[in-house]
Amino acid sequence: MLSITQYREAFLEYLETAVTLKEPVNLYEPISYILHLGGKRLRPVLVLMSAEVFESSFKKALSASLAIEVFHNFSLVHDDIMDDAPLRRGKATVHERWDVNTGILSGDAMLIYSYQLLENYDGPIFKELLQLFNSTAMRVCEGQQYDVDFATQDDVEIKDYLKMIEYKTAVLVAAALQMGAIIAETTPQNKQAMYEFGRLLGIAFQLQDDYLDAFGDPETFGKQVGGDIIENKKTFLYLTALQMADAVEARQLEHLYSINPGEATAKIEAVKQIFENSGASLRAREEIKKYTNKAFEALEELDIPEDRKALLRDFGQDLMNREV
Amino acid sequence: MLSITQYREAFLEYLETAVTLKEPVNLYEPISYILHLGGKRLRPVLVLMSAEVFESSFKKALSASLAIEVFHNFSLVHDDIMDDAPLRRGKATVHERWDVNTGILSGDAMLIYSYQLLENYDGPIFKELLQLFNSTAMRVCEGQQYDVDFATQDDVEIKDYLKMIEYKTAVLVAAALQMGAIIAETTPQNKQAMYEFGRLLGIAFQLQDDYLDAFGDPETFGKQVGGDIIENKKTFLYLTALQMADAVEARQLEHLYSINPGEATAKIEAVKQIFENSGASLRAREEIKKYTNKAFEALEELDIPEDRKALLRDFGQDLMNREV
Repeated sequence: MLSITQYREAFLEYLETAVTLKEPVNLYEPISYILHLGGKRLRPVLVLMSAEVFESSFKKALSASLAIEVFHNFSLVHDDIMDDAPLRRGKATVHERWDVNTGILSGDAMLIYSYQLLENYDGPIFKELLQLFNSTAMRVCEGQQYDVDFATQDDVEIKDYLKMIEYKTAVLVAAALQMGAIIAETTPQNKQAMYEFGRLLGIAFQLQDDYLDAFGDPETFGKQVGGDIIENKKTFLYLTALQMADAVEARQLEHLYSINPGEATAKIEAVKQIFENSGASLRAREEIKKYTNKAFEALEELDIPEDRKALLRDFGQDLMNREV
Repeated sequence: MLSITQYREAFLEYLETAVTLKEPVNLYEPISYILHLGGKRLRPVLVLMSAEVFESSFKKALSASLAIEVFHNFSLVHDDIMDDAPLRRGKATVHERWDVNTGILSGDAMLIYSYQLLENYDGPIFKELLQLFNSTAMRVCEGQQYDVDFATQDDVEIKDYLKMIEYKTAVLVAAALQMGAIIAETTPQNKQAMYEFGRLLGIAFQLQDDYLDAFGDPETFGKQVGGDIIENKKTFLYLTALQMADAVEARQLEHLYSINPGEATAKIEAVKQIFENSGASLRAREEIKKYTNKAFEALEELDIPEDRKALLRDFGQDLMNREV
């Protein structure tokens, strides 16, 4: 097996050969642009790693890894339109650099392109990949819809929130790992265990992302710290704080989440104080730990040598130990 | 074989069982809404008819017929956002009735749903359907991009226009017919001939649609007559008139296509006069006839009984004889 860095490099090399400029350029240029903005390439690396965990070559999994990455970027392009986001990875979003119509249409083409990349597989592997891809893609749309719905919904519960991040984020991580397992033609039990590992790690990852959005180091987080608070996002921290805080602080929090001050520093600090005082931030850290541990437990169901399980565990640890 | 009406009814019955409301309703309600707006159901009927032309049962083709119709409606939802169109089949468009974000996300879910419907096929049929669906879907996006590009492009040629309508409209008609042929597991030659028939008929159909947009009967056309002229759309009529008109009329036409009067009746009449005087409207009718005849010639390549070819020809004749 290769190192994470080596898988990433292999993926990036494949990306260069696969994604080329075609006519009409106004359709394909934004696709190339967003795919070259960088990022951790978490999902494609997981596809490649998973294939090799089950004794297949990562080379067989390159098309699937790009399919996952193209799909992920399709969802970013369309989500950025919906969120009216000007920046993605520090650069202009597609609809900012071009326009909304370009964002819509290039996003559509990316979704189709992700399916096209799966044509490199045949027979039962092809069918199984397609079914997984379809159900995952639909879940991601459903998750995005729940996220949109929450903005205007007063009675969001913590379990609704967990379902939303599972759909919007975790299932794609799960699918990445399962696609590698499908390509390696391993047992149904192994495929299932990889999915569970990815699903649970994906939830932990998103909970941590939300946590860092409030409590991360502005130097290293990459996004604007406090962004969720500014947008009054009903995250795990917010929903938990509402439940755990006393009546006075809960009302204060609801008030803070009803205003949109031009200068948000004071609001962010006040909200974070309630997150801390109420015990919500501690609870969030516990919840992240819980899902991470559950993810590692899922690894026990894998019928593979211990040293390969250790690799997956190390990967998960690294991912969850990030400060950014 | 059944009649067109019977295929349409069989399709509509299948649509009812397949498209149901699920959670989150804000995602699935717009999908149900647009799929129930009606229309000729041309593409799904072609899938069913094509399967039976090659001795298969239309029942085997129902999922594919819905996949094509769902894809077609996905493209309408996103195109209507891009065109800022308030009405579709006399009813509010999805982004008007809900909002742009709902249109984007529901459209995405429809695109994925169309792929999901193909899961009902297996083995080589599944793979062949997917490949055709992928390349067709990508072509449709490219066609839409060319259409968008033309609005700001000064040197659009007639061959560019023909390529645009081939991509944006005709390949989906071609794919509908070829999908039926794939499901019926007929010969490669028959599959190819059906594709050609659909492609040529699709081009004839779109040319006629553009012609009727200017010269159709306002009572029966369904859309606003003169809509393309109001929007300064570089259609076959416009591009041909520019070529065929004398210098004075050509400059007048260019001028008319540079203005956007609040009350457009005079502009529409003046443009139509130039379309007539220049000979462009006659040329358009000839071109429609030419593509229709070429479509019927493609039928000669089919290795099927003459009476089945006659059915396809009758269908084509009916389609092209519409006044609406």
